[in-house]
Amino acid sequence: MKLYTYWRSSAAYRVRIALNLKGLSSEMAFVHLVKEGGEQLQEAYQAINPHGLVPSLELDDKQVITQSMAIMEYLDETYSGARLLPGSPLERARVRSIAQSIACDIHPLNNLRVLKYITGEWGVTEEQRTLWYQHWICSGFESLERQLSEGHQTGDFCHGDEPGLADACLIPQIYNARRFSVAMDDYPVIQRIGKNCEALEPFQKAVPEAQEDAP
Amino acid sequence: MKLYTYWRSSAAYRVRIALNLKGLSSEMAFVHLVKEGGEQLQEAYQAINPHGLVPSLELDDKQVITQSMAIMEYLDETYSGARLLPGSPLERARVRSIAQSIACDIHPLNNLRVLKYITGEWGVTEEQRTLWYQHWICSGFESLERQLSEGHQTGDFCHGDEPGLADACLIPQIYNARRFSVAMDDYPVIQRIGKNCEALEPFQKAVPEAQEDAP
Repeated sequence: MKLYTYWRSSAAYRVRIALNLKGLSSEMAFVHLVKEGGEQLQEAYQAINPHGLVPSLELDDKQVITQSMAIMEYLDETYSGARLLPGSPLERARVRSIAQSIACDIHPLNNLRVLKYITGEWGVTEEQRTLWYQHWICSGFESLERQLSEGHQTGDFCHGDEPGLADACLIPQIYNARRFSVAMDDYPVIQRIGKNCEALEPFQKAVPEAQEDAP
Repeated sequence: MKLYTYWRSSAAYRVRIALNLKGLSSEMAFVHLVKEGGEQLQEAYQAINPHGLVPSLELDDKQVITQSMAIMEYLDETYSGARLLPGSPLERARVRSIAQSIACDIHPLNNLRVLKYITGEWGVTEEQRTLWYQHWICSGFESLERQLSEGHQTGDFCHGDEPGLADACLIPQIYNARRFSVAMDDYPVIQRIGKNCEALEPFQKAVPEAQEDAP
């Protein structure tokens, strides 16, 4: 299979982690998001992914799956190896809920195309843009920290003592938080899980700076 | 079970559709999102959902599931009746991808808290706010229209000839598009699916204006 990726895309970073956790290898095809004109917006890539976003996973029979969470669930349903989602419906719901609190409530607001819109259309200053970026991470992390602190289901990782789908979403978000100087002291559980993940090879190999297309 | 809902919340609207499609009944608890102070932000509700968002599904044993897509997958995995997701991993990936292109790439940008931020912090005008709202729907629908037009998997509904998870996400987004005067002519497939859904009772009963807490 072939993963269309960009080193700094959070959504592609999630799938790289998931592939590594499952012990799967994939060809990497690089889509340069910040080049003049954006490779993701050009016809060649839009024929693969009509949404013009990364990642996309092209299977060996050329069928394509888009959306990072859909790709990760597909990998988990199709391949053996470490489970990205737990066995019971209620536990799976918890893991999906954590993942979606990042993928639906934080990340979309800080996406490249959104930052471009607020700067290009409204002339938002760099300082305002940074505050916007930090605002959505902080409000999302504050709620997520509360969710992870409740009950006994959080372990070394977001759900229990094995890393999975929720951690694959959390780590790229922590990476972005650091990049935009968000103080992490208020989120001790998130920080602890982050450290536990970052000690593991599947997460280390997926880091943006370790990718072939990183500058 | 008990669904915490607000008549005009798109995410709650999705779950109301899903419950109806599955033939499930649920107690409804109303969380008034636009009241002074916002009931969703108050301690009583945050004890149920630490993210302060609707919907939340409280099960009979008081366990709570948050995030609309996680709730719908849980309902589908737990209850018999109509299937919200198809049987094969690849088809499930397609349905999730369509649902997520709405729930991750369109809806979060037009959420109440986001509109409040751009108005409150940046003094964006009503006209600019409407353009922003329309922009994310149009760019999302344009891509989705392309995705739905490719191949043979779209039928009377987003995936095949039975309504499911993707349609439960699409219909509330069409409702929002109409509310903000988005011209739908450019999206004939989306429009056709919308009409097919709106002819069905599970969708009709879930409409915001049909809810007990609608003004």
